Amino acid sequence: MNSRVAIVGPGLLGGSIALALRARRAAPVAIWARRPEAVEELKAIAIADFSSTSLDRVVRDADLIVLCTPIGAMPALAREIAPAAKPGTLVTDVGSVKAPVVAALGAIFGGRFVGSHPMAGSEQSGLHAARADLFEGATCIVTPDAQSDAGAIAEIAEFWRSLGGIVHRMSPAAHDEAVALVSHFPHLLAAALVNMVAARDASALYLSGPGFLDSTRVAAGSPEMWAEILASNPEAVGKSIHAMIESLREIENMLARDPADPALLHLLTAAKKTRDRLRQPTSHD
Amino acid sequence: MNSRVAIVGPGLLGGSIALALRARRAAPVAIWARRPEAVEELKAIAIADFSSTSLDRVVRDADLIVLCTPIGAMPALAREIAPAAKPGTLVTDVGSVKAPVVAALGAIFGGRFVGSHPMAGSEQSGLHAARADLFEGATCIVTPDAQSDAGAIAEIAEFWRSLGGIVHRMSPAAHDEAVALVSHFPHLLAAALVNMVAARDASALYLSGPGFLDSTRVAAGSPEMWAEILASNPEAVGKSIHAMIESLREIENMLARDPADPALLHLLTAAKKTRDRLRQPTSHD
Repeated sequence: MNSRVAIVGPGLLGGSIALALRARRAAPVAIWARRPEAVEELKAIAIADFSSTSLDRVVRDADLIVLCTPIGAMPALAREIAPAAKPGTLVTDVGSVKAPVVAALGAIFGGRFVGSHPMAGSEQSGLHAARADLFEGATCIVTPDAQSDAGAIAEIAEFWRSLGGIVHRMSPAAHDEAVALVSHFPHLLAAALVNMVAARDASALYLSGPGFLDSTRVAAGSPEMWAEILASNPEAVGKSIHAMIESLREIENMLARDPADPALLHLLTAAKKTRDRLRQPTSHD
Repeated sequence: MNSRVAIVGPGLLGGSIALALRARRAAPVAIWARRPEAVEELKAIAIADFSSTSLDRVVRDADLIVLCTPIGAMPALAREIAPAAKPGTLVTDVGSVKAPVVAALGAIFGGRFVGSHPMAGSEQSGLHAARADLFEGATCIVTPDAQSDAGAIAEIAEFWRSLGGIVHRMSPAAHDEAVALVSHFPHLLAAALVNMVAARDASALYLSGPGFLDSTRVAAGSPEMWAEILASNPEAVGKSIHAMIESLREIENMLARDPADPALLHLLTAAKKTRDRLRQPTSHD
Protein backbone atom coordinates (compact mmCIF):
# COMPACT_ATOMS: atom_id res chain seq x y z
CA MET A 1 0.00 0.00 0.00
CA ASN A 2 1.72 3.12 -1.21
CA SER A 3 -0.84 5.64 -0.03
CA ARG A 4 -0.94 8.25 2.71
CA VAL A 5 -1.92 7.05 6.19
CA ALA A 6 -3.47 9.23 8.90
CA ILE A 7 -3.32 7.88 12.44
CA VAL A 8 -5.79 9.37 14.89
CA GLY A 9 -4.46 8.92 18.42
CA PRO A 10 -0.78 8.46 19.32
CA GLY A 11 -0.89 5.62 21.88
CA LEU A 12 0.69 2.19 21.86
CA LEU A 13 -1.17 1.05 18.74
CA GLY A 14 -1.12 4.33 16.80
CA GLY A 15 2.55 4.81 17.57
CA SER A 16 3.38 1.23 16.61
CA ILE A 17 1.57 1.57 13.27
CA ALA A 18 3.60 4.71 12.55
CA LEU A 19 6.87 2.97 13.49
CA ALA A 20 6.00 -0.11 11.42
CA LEU A 21 5.14 2.02 8.36
CA ARG A 22 8.33 4.05 8.77
CA ALA A 23 10.45 0.89 9.12
CA ARG A 24 8.99 -0.31 5.83
CA ARG A 25 9.16 3.17 4.21
CA ALA A 26 5.68 2.18 3.16
CA ALA A 27 3.70 5.39 3.23
CA PRO A 28 3.81 9.01 4.34
CA VAL A 29 2.30 9.11 7.84
CA ALA A 30 0.39 11.88 9.60
CA ILE A 31 -0.62 11.63 13.27
CA TRP A 32 -3.27 13.50 15.17
CA ALA A 33 -3.04 13.97 18.93
CA ARG A 34 -5.50 15.84 21.13
CA ARG A 35 -2.89 17.43 23.38
CA PRO A 36 -0.21 19.87 22.10
CA GLU A 37 2.35 18.20 24.42
CA ALA A 38 1.69 14.87 22.67
CA VAL A 39 2.30 16.52 19.30
CA GLU A 40 5.58 17.93 20.62
CA GLU A 41 6.58 14.44 21.70
CA LEU A 42 5.68 13.02 18.28
CA LYS A 43 7.81 15.69 16.62
CA ALA A 44 10.71 15.13 19.01
CA ILE A 45 10.94 11.44 18.09
CA ALA A 46 10.26 12.17 14.39
CA ILE A 47 7.84 9.26 14.23
CA ALA A 48 5.69 10.75 11.44
CA ASP A 49 5.97 13.01 8.42
CA PHE A 50 3.38 15.33 9.95
CA SER A 51 1.90 15.66 13.45
CA SER A 52 -0.78 18.08 14.55
CA THR A 53 -3.68 18.76 16.89
CA SER A 54 -5.66 19.77 13.79
CA LEU A 55 -7.76 16.78 12.80
CA ASP A 56 -8.64 18.45 9.51
CA ARG A 57 -5.01 18.89 8.48
CA VAL A 58 -4.04 15.36 9.51
CA VAL A 59 -6.80 13.56 7.62
CA ARG A 60 -7.43 15.70 4.54
CA ASP A 61 -4.80 14.10 2.27
CA ALA A 62 -5.08 10.60 3.68
CA ASP A 63 -5.96 7.54 1.62
CA LEU A 64 -6.36 5.51 4.80
CA ILE A 65 -7.42 6.80 8.23
CA VAL A 66 -6.86 4.60 11.27
CA LEU A 67 -8.67 5.53 14.48
CA CYS A 68 -6.50 4.53 17.45
CA THR A 69 -8.22 6.34 20.32
CA PRO A 70 -10.28 4.79 23.11
CA ILE A 71 -13.50 3.47 21.59
CA GLY A 72 -15.69 5.94 23.47
CA ALA A 73 -13.99 8.85 21.71
CA MET A 74 -14.38 7.41 18.20
CA PRO A 75 -17.92 8.46 17.17
CA ALA A 76 -17.35 12.18 17.90
CA LEU A 77 -13.97 12.13 16.11
CA ALA A 78 -15.52 10.30 13.16
CA ARG A 79 -18.17 13.00 12.77
CA GLU A 80 -15.35 15.57 12.59
CA ILE A 81 -13.28 13.47 10.20
CA ALA A 82 -16.05 12.66 7.69
CA PRO A 83 -16.41 16.14 6.13
CA ALA A 84 -12.63 16.72 6.17
CA ALA A 85 -11.52 13.50 4.47
CA LYS A 86 -11.24 13.02 0.69
CA PRO A 87 -14.12 11.15 -0.94
CA GLY A 88 -13.26 7.47 -1.12
CA THR A 89 -10.80 7.52 1.77
CA LEU A 90 -10.64 4.19 3.56
CA VAL A 91 -11.29 4.22 7.31
CA THR A 92 -10.60 1.61 9.97
CA ASP A 93 -10.09 1.52 13.74
CA VAL A 94 -8.27 -0.64 16.29
CA GLY A 95 -10.94 -0.90 18.99
CA SER A 96 -11.17 -4.06 21.09
CA VAL A 97 -14.98 -4.24 20.84
CA LYS A 98 -16.44 -4.20 17.35
CA ALA A 99 -20.27 -4.32 17.19
CA PRO A 100 -20.93 -0.86 18.71
CA VAL A 101 -17.93 0.71 16.95
CA VAL A 102 -18.84 -0.71 13.53
CA ALA A 103 -22.46 0.39 13.95
CA ALA A 104 -21.45 3.94 14.86
CA LEU A 105 -18.61 4.41 12.36
CA GLY A 106 -20.33 2.51 9.54
CA ALA A 107 -23.26 4.93 9.84
CA ILE A 108 -20.84 7.83 9.37
CA PHE A 109 -18.43 6.51 6.72
CA GLY A 110 -20.57 3.93 4.89
CA GLY A 111 -18.98 1.03 3.04
CA ARG A 112 -15.48 2.58 3.05
CA PHE A 113 -15.23 1.90 6.80
CA VAL A 114 -14.18 -1.61 7.88
CA GLY A 115 -13.44 -2.27 11.56
CA SER A 116 -10.21 -3.93 12.71
CA HIS A 117 -8.81 -5.36 15.91
CA PRO A 118 -5.09 -6.08 15.96
CA MET A 119 -4.60 -8.31 19.03
CA ALA A 120 -1.22 -6.93 19.84
CA GLY A 121 -1.68 -4.87 22.96
CA SER A 122 0.24 -5.32 26.13
CA GLU A 123 -0.22 -4.27 29.74
CA GLN A 124 1.74 -1.20 28.75
CA SER A 125 0.14 1.72 27.01
CA GLY A 126 1.20 5.02 25.52
CA LEU A 127 3.62 6.10 22.84
CA HIS A 128 6.72 5.14 24.86
CA ALA A 129 5.68 1.47 24.60
CA ALA A 130 5.21 1.61 20.81
CA ARG A 131 7.36 -0.67 18.66
CA ALA A 132 7.82 -1.26 14.94
CA ASP A 133 7.41 -5.04 15.29
CA LEU A 134 4.28 -5.01 17.44
CA PHE A 135 2.16 -6.53 14.65
CA GLU A 136 4.67 -9.15 13.48
CA GLY A 137 2.84 -12.45 13.74
CA ALA A 138 -0.06 -10.84 15.60
CA THR A 139 -3.64 -11.85 14.97
CA CYS A 140 -5.40 -8.95 13.22
CA ILE A 141 -9.15 -9.39 13.02
CA VAL A 142 -11.01 -7.52 10.26
CA THR A 143 -14.76 -7.19 10.84
CA PRO A 144 -16.76 -6.20 7.75
CA ASP A 145 -20.54 -6.07 7.88
CA ALA A 146 -23.24 -6.24 5.20
CA GLN A 147 -22.64 -2.70 3.94
CA SER A 148 -18.82 -2.99 3.69
CA ASP A 149 -17.31 -2.33 0.29
CA ALA A 150 -15.50 -5.48 -1.00
CA GLY A 151 -12.49 -3.47 -2.17
CA ALA A 152 -12.26 -1.73 1.19
CA ILE A 153 -12.26 -5.08 3.03
CA ALA A 154 -9.43 -6.37 0.84
CA GLU A 155 -7.36 -3.20 1.26
CA ILE A 156 -7.74 -3.09 5.04
CA ALA A 157 -6.77 -6.76 5.27
CA GLU A 158 -3.75 -6.07 3.08
CA PHE A 159 -2.78 -3.12 5.28
CA TRP A 160 -2.50 -5.37 8.37
CA ARG A 161 -0.67 -8.05 6.39
CA SER A 162 1.82 -5.42 5.24
CA LEU A 163 2.62 -4.73 8.92
CA GLY A 164 3.24 -8.42 9.60
CA GLY A 165 -0.20 -9.32 10.93
CA ILE A 166 -2.09 -12.57 10.37
CA VAL A 167 -5.56 -11.56 9.22
CA HIS A 168 -8.78 -13.25 10.34
CA ARG A 169 -12.14 -12.11 9.01
CA MET A 170 -15.23 -12.24 11.23
CA SER A 171 -18.52 -10.41 11.67
CA PRO A 172 -18.48 -7.75 14.41
CA ALA A 173 -20.84 -9.85 16.58
CA ALA A 174 -18.79 -13.05 16.18
CA HIS A 175 -15.66 -11.04 17.01
CA ASP A 176 -17.17 -9.71 20.22
CA GLU A 177 -18.25 -13.20 21.34
CA ALA A 178 -14.89 -14.82 20.57
CA VAL A 179 -12.73 -12.03 21.95
CA ALA A 180 -14.78 -11.92 25.15
CA LEU A 181 -13.59 -15.51 25.70
CA VAL A 182 -9.88 -15.04 25.03
CA SER A 183 -9.32 -11.40 25.99
CA HIS A 184 -12.08 -9.45 27.73
CA PHE A 185 -13.09 -12.08 30.28
CA PRO A 186 -9.52 -13.29 30.98
CA HIS A 187 -8.61 -9.67 31.73
CA LEU A 188 -11.48 -9.36 34.21
CA LEU A 189 -10.54 -12.73 35.72
CA ALA A 190 -6.92 -11.67 36.25
CA ALA A 191 -8.08 -8.48 37.98
CA ALA A 192 -10.54 -10.43 40.14
CA LEU A 193 -7.76 -12.86 41.09
CA VAL A 194 -5.40 -10.08 42.17
CA ASN A 195 -8.16 -8.45 44.22
CA MET A 196 -9.24 -11.75 45.78
CA VAL A 197 -5.71 -12.55 46.95
CA ALA A 198 -5.19 -8.99 48.22
CA ALA A 199 -8.46 -9.17 50.18
CA ARG A 200 -7.77 -12.57 51.75
CA ASP A 201 -4.06 -12.18 52.54
CA ALA A 202 -2.11 -9.34 50.93
CA SER A 203 1.15 -10.66 52.43
CA ALA A 204 0.80 -13.81 50.30
CA LEU A 205 1.35 -11.61 47.22
CA TYR A 206 4.98 -11.24 48.21
CA LEU A 207 5.46 -14.98 47.88
CA SER A 208 4.23 -14.99 44.30
CA GLY A 209 6.47 -16.63 41.75
CA PRO A 210 6.70 -16.34 37.98
CA GLY A 211 3.45 -18.27 37.47
CA PHE A 212 1.31 -15.78 39.40
CA LEU A 213 3.09 -12.84 37.80
CA ASP A 214 2.37 -14.20 34.31
CA SER A 215 -1.21 -15.15 35.16
CA THR A 216 -1.96 -11.62 36.35
CA ARG A 217 0.22 -9.55 34.01
CA VAL A 218 -2.76 -8.20 32.04
CA ALA A 219 -4.26 -6.82 35.26
CA ALA A 220 -1.62 -4.08 35.08
CA GLY A 221 -3.28 -2.72 31.93
CA SER A 222 -5.07 0.62 31.77
CA PRO A 223 -8.16 0.45 34.04
CA GLU A 224 -9.92 3.19 32.07
CA MET A 225 -9.41 1.43 28.74
CA TRP A 226 -10.49 -1.95 30.08
CA ALA A 227 -13.53 -0.62 31.93
CA GLU A 228 -14.66 0.87 28.63
CA ILE A 229 -14.02 -2.39 26.75
CA LEU A 230 -15.87 -4.53 29.30
CA ALA A 231 -18.76 -2.08 29.52
CA SER A 232 -19.05 -2.18 25.71
CA ASN A 233 -19.34 -5.98 25.57
CA PRO A 234 -21.34 -6.83 28.70
CA GLU A 235 -23.45 -9.67 27.32
CA ALA A 236 -20.63 -11.80 25.96
CA VAL A 237 -18.49 -11.11 29.03
CA GLY A 238 -21.47 -12.00 31.22
CA LYS A 239 -21.75 -15.41 29.51
CA SER A 240 -18.08 -16.12 30.23
CA ILE A 241 -18.49 -15.10 33.87
CA HIS A 242 -21.47 -17.40 34.17
CA ALA A 243 -19.64 -20.32 32.55
CA MET A 244 -16.64 -19.85 34.84
CA ILE A 245 -18.83 -19.74 37.96
CA GLU A 246 -20.39 -23.04 36.85
CA SER A 247 -16.95 -24.61 36.27
CA LEU A 248 -15.61 -23.46 39.62
CA ARG A 249 -18.70 -24.71 41.43
CA GLU A 250 -18.23 -28.16 39.90
CA ILE A 251 -14.58 -28.23 40.92
CA GLU A 252 -15.45 -26.98 44.42
CA ASN A 253 -17.96 -29.80 44.88
CA MET A 254 -15.55 -32.37 43.53
CA LEU A 255 -12.70 -31.30 45.83
CA ALA A 256 -15.03 -31.23 48.85
CA ARG A 257 -16.37 -34.72 48.02
CA ASP A 258 -13.07 -36.41 47.17
CA PRO A 259 -9.78 -34.56 46.52
CA ALA A 260 -8.43 -37.75 44.89
CA ASP A 261 -11.27 -37.80 42.32
CA PRO A 262 -9.66 -38.63 38.93
CA ALA A 263 -11.81 -35.86 37.41
CA LEU A 264 -9.22 -33.41 38.77
CA LEU A 265 -6.41 -35.04 36.79
CA HIS A 266 -8.68 -35.20 33.74
CA LEU A 267 -9.44 -31.49 33.81
CA LEU A 268 -5.77 -30.59 34.21
CA THR A 269 -4.81 -32.98 31.40
CA ALA A 270 -7.44 -31.54 29.06
CA ALA A 271 -6.25 -28.00 29.80
CA LYS A 272 -2.61 -28.93 29.19
CA LYS A 273 -3.46 -30.56 25.86
CA THR A 274 -5.35 -27.48 24.70
CA ARG A 275 -2.73 -25.03 25.98
CA ASP A 276 0.11 -26.98 24.38
CA ARG A 277 -1.57 -26.62 20.99
CA LEU A 278 -1.54 -22.81 21.16
CA ARG A 279 1.42 -20.97 19.82
CA GLN A 280 3.97 -19.91 22.40
CA PRO A 281 4.41 -16.25 23.29
CA THR A 282 6.88 -14.62 20.92
CA SER A 283 9.74 -12.41 21.97
CA HIS A 284 7.66 -9.26 22.05
CA ASP A 285 5.04 -10.64 24.43
CA MET B 1 27.88 -24.69 52.95
CA ASN B 2 30.83 -26.88 52.17
CA SER B 3 29.23 -30.22 52.83
CA ARG B 4 28.08 -33.09 50.65
CA VAL B 5 24.62 -32.79 49.11
CA ALA B 6 22.44 -35.71 48.02
CA ILE B 7 19.59 -34.90 45.66
CA VAL B 8 16.77 -37.44 45.53
CA GLY B 9 14.96 -37.07 42.19
CA PRO B 10 16.49 -35.60 39.01
CA GLY B 11 13.69 -33.36 37.73
CA LEU B 12 13.59 -29.62 37.10
CA LEU B 13 14.25 -28.71 40.74
CA GLY B 14 16.72 -31.50 41.58
CA GLY B 15 18.63 -30.89 38.37
CA SER B 16 18.68 -27.12 38.94
CA ILE B 17 20.01 -27.55 42.49
CA ALA B 18 22.81 -29.73 41.11
CA LEU B 19 23.64 -27.19 38.39
CA ALA B 20 23.55 -24.29 40.86
CA LEU B 21 25.87 -26.12 43.29
CA ARG B 22 28.24 -27.04 40.46
CA ALA B 23 28.28 -23.46 39.15
CA ARG B 24 29.34 -22.33 42.63
CA ARG B 25 31.71 -25.30 43.16
CA ALA B 26 29.91 -25.33 46.48
CA ALA B 27 29.70 -29.00 47.38
CA PRO B 28 30.15 -32.52 46.04
CA VAL B 29 26.75 -33.59 44.68
CA ALA B 30 25.22 -37.05 44.43
CA ILE B 31 21.89 -37.65 42.66
CA TRP B 32 19.48 -40.55 42.96
CA ALA B 33 17.12 -41.45 40.14
CA ARG B 34 14.62 -44.30 40.11
CA ARG B 35 15.18 -45.28 36.49
CA PRO B 36 18.53 -46.50 35.14
CA GLU B 37 17.95 -44.45 31.96
CA ALA B 38 17.72 -41.30 34.08
CA VAL B 39 21.02 -42.17 35.75
CA GLU B 40 22.60 -42.62 32.31
CA GLU B 41 21.32 -39.17 31.34
CA LEU B 42 22.73 -37.65 34.54
CA LYS B 43 26.11 -39.21 33.80
CA ALA B 44 26.03 -38.09 30.18
CA ILE B 45 25.64 -34.45 31.15
CA ALA B 46 28.08 -34.82 34.08
CA ILE B 47 25.75 -32.86 36.32
CA ALA B 48 26.86 -34.56 39.56
CA ASP B 49 29.90 -36.15 41.13
CA PHE B 50 27.95 -39.36 41.60
CA SER B 51 24.64 -40.64 40.19
CA SER B 52 22.96 -43.93 40.99
CA THR B 53 19.70 -45.84 41.33
CA SER B 54 21.00 -46.97 44.75
CA LEU B 55 19.41 -44.71 47.34
CA ASP B 56 21.74 -46.08 50.01
CA ARG B 57 24.90 -45.18 48.08
CA VAL B 58 23.62 -41.70 47.17
CA VAL B 59 22.65 -40.64 50.68
CA ARG B 60 25.14 -42.40 52.98
CA ASP B 61 27.89 -39.74 52.91
CA ALA B 62 25.56 -36.76 52.59
CA ASP B 63 25.50 -33.87 55.06
CA LEU B 64 22.32 -32.57 53.41
CA ILE B 65 19.65 -34.62 51.62
CA VAL B 66 17.12 -32.79 49.42
CA LEU B 67 14.01 -34.70 48.37
CA CYS B 68 12.94 -33.50 44.91
CA THR B 69 10.41 -36.15 43.91
CA PRO B 70 6.63 -35.75 43.66
CA ILE B 71 5.29 -35.32 47.19
CA GLY B 72 3.37 -38.61 47.10
CA ALA B 73 6.64 -40.55 46.71
CA MET B 74 8.40 -38.82 49.61
CA PRO B 75 7.27 -40.80 52.68
CA ALA B 76 8.30 -44.20 51.26
CA LEU B 77 11.66 -42.81 50.11
CA ALA B 78 12.20 -41.17 53.49
CA ARG B 79 11.68 -44.50 55.27
CA GLU B 80 14.41 -45.98 53.05
CA ILE B 81 16.74 -43.02 53.51
CA ALA B 82 16.50 -42.79 57.31
CA PRO B 83 18.51 -45.95 58.18
CA ALA B 84 21.06 -45.28 55.39
CA ALA B 85 21.92 -41.66 56.22
CA LYS B 86 24.61 -40.57 58.69
CA PRO B 87 23.35 -39.51 62.12
CA GLY B 88 22.82 -35.77 62.15
CA THR B 89 22.34 -35.45 58.39
CA LEU B 90 20.10 -32.52 57.51
CA VAL B 91 17.04 -33.30 55.36
CA THR B 92 14.75 -31.02 53.39
CA ASP B 93 12.36 -31.31 50.45
CA VAL B 94 11.00 -29.06 47.70
CA GLY B 95 7.32 -30.06 47.77
CA SER B 96 4.66 -27.47 46.92
CA VAL B 97 2.40 -28.48 49.83
CA LYS B 98 3.97 -28.49 53.27
CA ALA B 99 1.64 -29.59 56.11
CA PRO B 100 1.26 -33.26 55.04
CA VAL B 101 4.91 -33.53 53.91
CA VAL B 102 6.29 -31.99 57.11
CA ALA B 103 4.08 -34.24 59.24
CA ALA B 104 5.22 -37.38 57.41
CA LEU B 105 8.93 -36.54 57.06
CA GLY B 106 9.24 -34.91 60.48
CA ALA B 107 7.95 -38.16 62.01
CA ILE B 108 10.75 -40.04 60.21
CA PHE B 109 13.72 -37.66 60.54
CA GLY B 110 12.84 -35.66 63.68
CA GLY B 111 14.22 -32.17 64.23
CA ARG B 112 16.90 -32.49 61.50
CA PHE B 113 14.18 -32.31 58.84
CA VAL B 114 12.95 -28.85 57.83
CA GLY B 115 10.56 -28.50 54.85
CA SER B 116 11.26 -26.09 52.00
CA HIS B 117 9.40 -24.76 48.99
CA PRO B 118 11.48 -22.91 46.41
CA MET B 119 8.88 -21.09 44.27
CA ALA B 120 10.89 -21.41 41.12
CA GLY B 121 9.05 -23.93 39.02
CA SER B 122 7.86 -23.34 35.53
CA GLU B 123 5.35 -24.97 33.23
CA GLN B 124 8.26 -27.09 32.09
CA SER B 125 9.44 -30.10 34.01
CA GLY B 126 12.21 -32.63 33.82
CA LEU B 127 15.96 -32.51 33.78
CA HIS B 128 16.18 -30.89 30.33
CA ALA B 129 14.54 -27.74 31.76
CA ALA B 130 16.98 -27.49 34.70
CA ARG B 131 19.11 -24.34 34.98
CA ALA B 132 21.84 -23.13 37.28
CA ASP B 133 20.13 -19.77 37.88
CA LEU B 134 16.64 -21.11 38.62
CA PHE B 135 16.79 -19.97 42.24
CA GLU B 136 18.36 -16.55 41.65
CA GLY B 137 15.96 -14.07 43.21
CA ALA B 138 13.34 -16.78 43.76
CA THR B 139 11.21 -16.90 46.88
CA CYS B 140 12.30 -19.93 48.94
CA ILE B 141 9.94 -20.69 51.80
CA VAL B 142 11.32 -22.64 54.76
CA THR B 143 8.67 -24.23 56.98
CA PRO B 144 9.92 -25.35 60.39
CA ASP B 145 7.50 -26.72 62.98
CA ALA B 146 7.65 -27.04 66.76
CA GLN B 147 10.07 -29.96 66.71
CA SER B 148 12.56 -28.45 64.22
CA ASP B 149 16.14 -28.10 65.39
CA ALA B 150 17.15 -24.40 65.44
CA GLY B 151 20.52 -25.14 63.84
CA ALA B 152 18.85 -27.16 61.10
CA ILE B 153 16.46 -24.29 60.30
CA ALA B 154 19.38 -21.87 59.99
CA GLU B 155 21.40 -24.25 57.79
CA ILE B 156 18.51 -25.00 55.42
CA ALA B 157 17.77 -21.28 55.08
CA GLU B 158 21.45 -20.64 54.35
CA PHE B 159 21.45 -23.41 51.74
CA TRP B 160 18.71 -21.65 49.71
CA ARG B 161 20.40 -18.29 50.16
CA SER B 162 23.62 -19.78 48.82
CA LEU B 163 21.73 -20.69 45.60
CA GLY B 164 20.45 -17.13 45.22
CA GLY B 165 17.05 -17.58 46.88
CA ILE B 166 15.22 -15.08 49.06
CA VAL B 167 14.18 -16.97 52.15
CA HIS B 168 10.82 -16.58 53.91
CA ARG B 169 10.04 -18.53 57.06
CA MET B 170 6.48 -19.71 57.74
CA SER B 171 4.69 -22.53 59.51
CA PRO B 172 3.62 -25.41 57.23
CA ALA B 173 -0.06 -24.50 57.70
CA ALA B 174 0.49 -20.80 56.97
CA HIS B 175 2.50 -21.79 53.87
CA ASP B 176 -0.30 -23.96 52.56
CA GLU B 177 -2.89 -21.20 53.04
CA ALA B 178 -0.75 -18.50 51.41
CA VAL B 179 0.52 -20.62 48.54
CA ALA B 180 -3.00 -21.83 47.76
CA LEU B 181 -3.80 -18.16 47.04
CA VAL B 182 -0.83 -17.32 44.81
CA SER B 183 -0.01 -20.68 43.24
CA HIS B 184 -2.34 -23.65 43.72
CA PHE B 185 -5.63 -21.86 43.04
CA PRO B 186 -4.26 -19.68 40.19
CA HIS B 187 -3.07 -22.89 38.53
CA LEU B 188 -6.52 -24.43 38.80
CA LEU B 189 -8.09 -21.19 37.55
CA ALA B 190 -5.84 -21.09 34.48
CA ALA B 191 -6.76 -24.70 33.66
CA ALA B 192 -10.46 -23.95 34.18
CA LEU B 193 -10.17 -20.91 31.90
CA VAL B 194 -8.56 -22.91 29.09
CA ASN B 195 -11.21 -25.62 29.39
CA MET B 196 -14.06 -23.09 29.53
CA VAL B 197 -12.94 -21.37 26.33
CA ALA B 198 -12.36 -24.71 24.59
CA ALA B 199 -15.86 -25.86 25.58
CA ARG B 200 -17.64 -22.68 24.48
CA ASP B 201 -15.73 -21.96 21.24
CA ALA B 202 -12.46 -23.77 20.57
CA SER B 203 -11.89 -21.70 17.42
CA ALA B 204 -11.62 -18.57 19.58
CA LEU B 205 -8.39 -20.02 21.01
CA TYR B 206 -6.69 -19.35 17.71
CA LEU B 207 -7.36 -15.64 18.13
CA SER B 208 -5.59 -15.52 21.47
CA GLY B 209 -2.91 -12.90 21.89
CA PRO B 210 0.02 -12.60 24.28
CA GLY B 211 -2.29 -11.75 27.20
CA PHE B 212 -4.20 -15.04 27.04
CA LEU B 213 -1.00 -17.00 26.48
CA ASP B 214 0.57 -15.47 29.59
CA SER B 215 -2.59 -15.85 31.67
CA THR B 216 -2.77 -19.56 30.88
CA ARG B 217 0.92 -20.48 30.68
CA VAL B 218 0.88 -22.42 33.95
CA ALA B 219 -1.92 -24.64 32.61
CA ALA B 220 0.75 -26.34 30.48
CA GLY B 221 2.39 -27.69 33.66
CA SER B 222 2.44 -31.39 34.56
CA PRO B 223 -1.16 -32.54 35.20
CA GLU B 224 0.01 -35.39 37.44
CA MET B 225 2.12 -33.11 39.62
CA TRP B 226 -0.58 -30.49 39.93
CA ALA B 227 -3.39 -32.95 40.61
CA GLU B 228 -1.28 -34.26 43.50
CA ILE B 229 -0.60 -30.73 44.80
CA LEU B 230 -4.24 -29.68 44.64
CA ALA B 231 -5.44 -32.92 46.20
CA SER B 232 -2.95 -32.39 49.06
CA ASN B 233 -4.26 -28.90 49.89
CA PRO B 234 -8.00 -29.17 49.25
CA GLU B 235 -9.27 -27.00 52.11
CA ALA B 236 -7.20 -23.92 51.33
CA VAL B 237 -7.82 -24.32 47.60
CA GLY B 238 -11.52 -24.74 48.31
CA LYS B 239 -11.58 -21.40 50.18
CA SER B 240 -10.01 -19.67 47.18
CA ILE B 241 -12.53 -21.25 44.80
CA HIS B 242 -15.34 -20.11 47.03
CA ALA B 243 -13.99 -16.55 47.25
CA MET B 244 -13.58 -16.36 43.47
CA ILE B 245 -17.13 -17.59 42.86
CA GLU B 246 -18.37 -14.84 45.19
CA SER B 247 -16.30 -12.19 43.38
CA LEU B 248 -17.47 -13.30 39.95
CA ARG B 249 -21.08 -13.38 41.07
CA GLU B 250 -20.81 -9.77 42.27
CA ILE B 251 -19.26 -8.68 38.99
CA GLU B 252 -21.89 -10.61 37.01
CA ASN B 253 -24.68 -8.84 38.86
CA MET B 254 -23.04 -5.46 38.45
CA LEU B 255 -22.55 -5.88 34.68
CA ALA B 256 -26.13 -7.10 34.24
CA ARG B 257 -27.50 -4.16 36.25
CA ASP B 258 -25.35 -1.40 34.75
CA PRO B 259 -22.24 -1.97 32.61
CA ALA B 260 -21.26 1.66 33.22
CA ASP B 261 -21.24 1.16 37.02
CA PRO B 262 -18.10 2.92 38.33
CA ALA B 263 -17.49 -0.15 40.52
CA LEU B 264 -16.04 -1.80 37.40
CA LEU B 265 -13.39 0.89 37.01
CA HIS B 266 -12.72 0.74 40.75
CA LEU B 267 -12.04 -2.98 40.72
CA LEU B 268 -9.73 -2.71 37.72
CA THR B 269 -7.90 0.23 39.31
CA ALA B 270 -7.44 -1.65 42.60
CA ALA B 271 -6.08 -4.68 40.74
CA LYS B 272 -3.66 -2.56 38.73
CA LYS B 273 -2.37 -0.83 41.86
CA THR B 274 -1.75 -4.16 43.56
CA ARG B 275 -0.22 -5.80 40.49
CA ASP B 276 2.09 -2.83 39.85
CA ARG B 277 3.54 -3.24 43.35
CA LEU B 278 4.66 -6.83 42.67
CA ARG B 279 8.07 -7.41 41.24
CA GLN B 280 8.18 -7.95 37.50
CA PRO B 281 8.94 -11.34 36.03
CA THR B 282 12.69 -11.76 35.64
CA SER B 283 14.39 -13.02 32.52
CA HIS B 284 14.10 -16.66 33.53
CA ASP B 285 10.33 -16.59 33.98
